[in-house]
Amino acid sequence: MLRFDRDFTFEGSEAQHRVMEEAFAVVTEEHKGRIGYYDLPEGSRTLVEAAKALETQNSLLASGAITDIAVIGIGGSSLGIKAVDSLLASRGDKTRELHFFENSDPIDITRTMAKLTKEKTLFVVISKSGGTIETTSIFKTLIAHFGLELDGADRERVFVITDAGSSLSKFGDAYGLGQFNIPDNVGGRFSVLSAVGIIPLTLAGYDTAALLAGAGSFLTSFFEGKEQHLLEKACFIYEHDREHSVNVLFSYANDLENFTKWYVQLWGESLGKVDAMGSHVGMTPVGLIGSVDQHSFLQLLIEGPKDKTVTFISIEDFGAPLVIPEISLKHIEKTDFINGKSFSTLINAQCAATRESLVRSGVPTDGIVIEQIDAASVGTMIIYYELLTSLVGAMLLVNTYDQPGVELGKVILYETFTDKG
Amino acid sequence: MLRFDRDFTFEGSEAQHRVMEEAFAVVTEEHKGRIGYYDLPEGSRTLVEAAKALETQNSLLASGAITDIAVIGIGGSSLGIKAVDSLLASRGDKTRELHFFENSDPIDITRTMAKLTKEKTLFVVISKSGGTIETTSIFKTLIAHFGLELDGADRERVFVITDAGSSLSKFGDAYGLGQFNIPDNVGGRFSVLSAVGIIPLTLAGYDTAALLAGAGSFLTSFFEGKEQHLLEKACFIYEHDREHSVNVLFSYANDLENFTKWYVQLWGESLGKVDAMGSHVGMTPVGLIGSVDQHSFLQLLIEGPKDKTVTFISIEDFGAPLVIPEISLKHIEKTDFINGKSFSTLINAQCAATRESLVRSGVPTDGIVIEQIDAASVGTMIIYYELLTSLVGAMLLVNTYDQPGVELGKVILYETFTDKG
Repeated sequence: MLRFDRDFTFEGSEAQHRVMEEAFAVVTEEHKGRIGYYDLPEGSRTLVEAAKALETQNSLLASGAITDIAVIGIGGSSLGIKAVDSLLASRGDKTRELHFFENSDPIDITRTMAKLTKEKTLFVVISKSGGTIETTSIFKTLIAHFGLELDGADRERVFVITDAGSSLSKFGDAYGLGQFNIPDNVGGRFSVLSAVGIIPLTLAGYDTAALLAGAGSFLTSFFEGKEQHLLEKACFIYEHDREHSVNVLFSYANDLENFTKWYVQLWGESLGKVDAMGSHVGMTPVGLIGSVDQHSFLQLLIEGPKDKTVTFISIEDFGAPLVIPEISLKHIEKTDFINGKSFSTLINAQCAATRESLVRSGVPTDGIVIEQIDAASVGTMIIYYELLTSLVGAMLLVNTYDQPGVELGKVILYETFTDKG
Repeated sequence: MLRFDRDFTFEGSEAQHRVMEEAFAVVTEEHKGRIGYYDLPEGSRTLVEAAKALETQNSLLASGAITDIAVIGIGGSSLGIKAVDSLLASRGDKTRELHFFENSDPIDITRTMAKLTKEKTLFVVISKSGGTIETTSIFKTLIAHFGLELDGADRERVFVITDAGSSLSKFGDAYGLGQFNIPDNVGGRFSVLSAVGIIPLTLAGYDTAALLAGAGSFLTSFFEGKEQHLLEKACFIYEHDREHSVNVLFSYANDLENFTKWYVQLWGESLGKVDAMGSHVGMTPVGLIGSVDQHSFLQLLIEGPKDKTVTFISIEDFGAPLVIPEISLKHIEKTDFINGKSFSTLINAQCAATRESLVRSGVPTDGIVIEQIDAASVGTMIIYYELLTSLVGAMLLVNTYDQPGVELGKVILYETFTDKG
């Protein structure tokens, strides 16, 4: 379960209610057709079953030989999977390790390849469009490095996850590989609850049914009008988008770092747009980790320009009862006041104290408390941020779901290596 | 060696020359006395020798038993060490593994402890002030977990690095532990070239003499007036600090991620200040990794508000000749144009293409090319960013070296657990 609270003032004026009603109407309309991610909590349930069925249908999985899953994908095809994997890994329900090939960084690719052996590994190639240069280049490298025989012995070892009809889909069909499709109307950065996330996460042993259920129940509650706080938060962010041009997610747990990276993509790529009036809009997303970044970014939050809003995420019960021992060391007794308390108590008190210091400095904050990390709460976090992004996008009058700005670089890259340059 | 270039326009007006001359005078004055980090490239050379001497003087090191070094520290007492370790680890000159205990996160502490055994580990406790709550709490936990006998058998296993006269220093003296001191006038975030970084990095096998030499030669060149580009960059950033309130470091290599985190602390904590006129100043530092974040933050850079400057860091020679094989896969031939090229070529072409797309969108950019990652080039990168920070701080009329904003949260935390609340 999640709990939400806030320190910023929200008047609830008539104008604000109109903004919220219009945005609610927009996302309701999106839900009815054009935008697919709203349907995933319900629609992806069959994928959980399909992934589980592979345990008997796929002879490599059935044999028990597979201990590792290599995910080849970047951006929306990796960030969400990593976010969930990082958060759930410490719970111990993982049965296989996930490894990620994302960046076109030769050192990173070489290092990740060295951790794997072909016999124990299943390869999952993920690209919505099918033509992502990092993904196809790395995939070819893995084929050569591991001697993958797509035409023969290794046909069951490689899966593709892509849009139906994409070039990667046609490739999968041509070689007879296992394939799962992403609905056309689900964008990459909104795709973690589609086959993109559900297939590898289920194969890794995670409770993806609970992940979907957690997302689904919040989604239902929202569309039933029971999550007014989310509309109000979106409205506050929208109304202050110039004044508070930096949107900070301050997460108090190392394992939340990949979640903040997923949020940065979702927020930056969805809202960083030219709006309907031709203005350049979009708040800069910044992900921080507490308590570490109290020793880094905090000074700027307190004394720098008042151009930031900060959301604090904390985990109430870490499930790791590590207690600071009752040891007093000569001359460093000053911090003995925390002796006998758990680190969970310490880190959450640090979160609360830091937040209070920001409030006193006039920085608008809000908080999300995750009572306990489990698949359902992670699913709720995902849909919460997706809905928030859609609402702010609707209010800003941008197309939340495209990314026209990234095309130019791809064209220039292509021209670099071809006659067209 | 490093190469620098830029796309932004710098007129070099008389007013700008005055700003640059004044800032140069300020840092020259700092160098003469008040601020200690300028002296580290020269002054820390004896520390390299001292750390090497430990290999024979310390019986645990001399016996060859030590394979792991646990660094207990946070913020300025860990970020710089991690940055250097990450960049140099792939070169293969490491003789011992570094492990970091930073966050008051029970899951992270438990996980890191599980990787270590007492017999093989040396513990280095780092805190400038000596009273950092994360560091002392974790240290006590390690004492209990590993049964460290500070009064007896494990006296040689624990070192402290702190200011002379601090509570941690007195603690070290009381128990007769090995100790290295940080000069009073070197701030935590400027301390990586002091004992903070030099002792653990030397013990881990890195060429810290070359690290210092790389920093020293750039520093000398700068004070000889030969690095005008650095002054001009500082001046450009200063002049546009309101218009370009976000300062992005876009680094094209996974191993640069910890360097960007070090930069975020250095920049945010040094420049996020109330200036001499009482204004809240400071540009928001954002660290990105290419090519990954082309699939995340790039859309916002291109189409969002034009409130950002972007510095691209790339590595010319990765020293990992991984080539994209000449494989053509049915239906995904579109990316075959990169076949036969190295990943090093691909990632650097992606960097150049992304930069060009930003330039065409009107975003001011500059570039730093690291010809090859080695200790000397990493040292140059460190001093380059420290000097840039000092120059911009001098121009902004802030105290670059304090961090008054972080105290309030510490007071509130203390009050939470004591009668004073």
